[in-house]
Amino acid sequence: MIRVKVPATSANIGAGFDCLGIALDLYNIIEAEEIESGLKITIPESDKGYIETDERNLVFISMKRLFDEVGYRPKGLHINLINNIPITRGLIGGMTVACIVEGEVKYVRIDLPDYIKLLVMVPDFQLPTSEARAILPQNVPMQDAVFNISRAALLTASLITGRLDNLPAAVDDRLHQPYRKGLIPHWDEIMSKMAELGTKGTFLSGAGPTLITIMDKDYDNIRAETCKFLAAFEQHWDVYIMDVCRYGAELLAQGKGEIVCR
Amino acid sequence: MIRVKVPATSANIGAGFDCLGIALDLYNIIEAEEIESGLKITIPESDKGYIETDERNLVFISMKRLFDEVGYRPKGLHINLINNIPITRGLIGGMTVACIVEGEVKYVRIDLPDYIKLLVMVPDFQLPTSEARAILPQNVPMQDAVFNISRAALLTASLITGRLDNLPAAVDDRLHQPYRKGLIPHWDEIMSKMAELGTKGTFLSGAGPTLITIMDKDYDNIRAETCKFLAAFEQHWDVYIMDVCRYGAELLAQGKGEIVCR
Repeated sequence: MIRVKVPATSANIGAGFDCLGIALDLYNIIEAEEIESGLKITIPESDKGYIETDERNLVFISMKRLFDEVGYRPKGLHINLINNIPITRGLIGGMTVACIVEGEVKYVRIDLPDYIKLLVMVPDFQLPTSEARAILPQNVPMQDAVFNISRAALLTASLITGRLDNLPAAVDDRLHQPYRKGLIPHWDEIMSKMAELGTKGTFLSGAGPTLITIMDKDYDNIRAETCKFLAAFEQHWDVYIMDVCRYGAELLAQGKGEIVCR
Repeated sequence: MIRVKVPATSANIGAGFDCLGIALDLYNIIEAEEIESGLKITIPESDKGYIETDERNLVFISMKRLFDEVGYRPKGLHINLINNIPITRGLIGGMTVACIVEGEVKYVRIDLPDYIKLLVMVPDFQLPTSEARAILPQNVPMQDAVFNISRAALLTASLITGRLDNLPAAVDDRLHQPYRKGLIPHWDEIMSKMAELGTKGTFLSGAGPTLITIMDKDYDNIRAETCKFLAAFEQHWDVYIMDVCRYGAELLAQGKGEIVCR
């Protein structure tokens, strides 16, 4: 049996729409084993109705693509998904700037300071990515594009050089959040509260509805205040303090948690 | 008398439209002296017709603003402009990522590796910034905005971390160069030639028409090959190898070149 540990990622860090992502200290474990015949995919009870358990399953599709690539044909397959990452809430592992240029991924990995932690706010409502995508316009004002370019460059430079004072301004965005905020109840109030708590910027994780706030200190107090604040709303929000995951996917030893390769 | 030395700058580094600038090792010197009465502005012969020599002069307007700010009123003023920077060719005066957020300039200075030099190609035709601005659309496709955001972030991260292999892809732009390239004869041929010479990316300096190529080696040979190549065209191009200026404006000692403050 093969066990792989994959961290949650949050894409679209503020102005870095579709290019700045971060891995979180929150993991899914994928166990896969060749069996005599057939395809058997087991998932947690809570994910039923959201994850396919037949040939449309994304993990199976990825494995099949690798098998095709290397020319191996397993007799049958048992895939067991141990999922800790909330489904369709905008979470799926350091921070990476990436773009695809002529089919090749060009990227730079950014090592964030250890004292940066993230406050991750996960609501009890789901927001399908398809819906969050459909709400975006096809054309945007040039000045909004320039707004995001400048913030994305400032955010990148500030994170690499440790200029955290720039972050609240640098995570601002005009390309997706203004269109999507209507899908998140109490957006403006939450944003104001996070600024008031002295955090370093709040943004929509991926296509939402999870929100992420950057913190450089006072973690537990900020979490407590945030929980108290969010409890006044009709939606329920789970609030977590998360470290940035320093590694990507990991291959674990059989039956144990030891890391075989990274 | 006061003497100030100001480096040329090139804005719009590739994808960093309106936010990524670089200072060059090419300078204007501004000499200013209080006189008994009146305003006397002297400029080089070659700049006549391009630079105002009355109260509309930009240096005078800047000085006046400072005088107003500090409450000083000079009796009269003699300003002597010793200009080495070509006018309206997209060059004025490390590398800086900057944006203005609520009236405040947020920036990060990037120290480039010493071996990065720039090949600066200045043509004999002028391109007024007003014309280069008028040609830009008010709205742009979302995918072009995302294209630039990702490259601007990748460019910034690659320059800070020394990942020069990413540069040719990272300086690419879809927000202003595709609209302005028609104003630069032989754009495509020049771009192809620069890539063929193994340089690290070529972009329009500011609103053009000057072009800048990033080099990490082989400087003299690249310059010689470029001169030979450009000589075939009907326009004349002056081609310079320039260092990145590590400092901003400098106050020089009276009558000498010594630096008083930076």
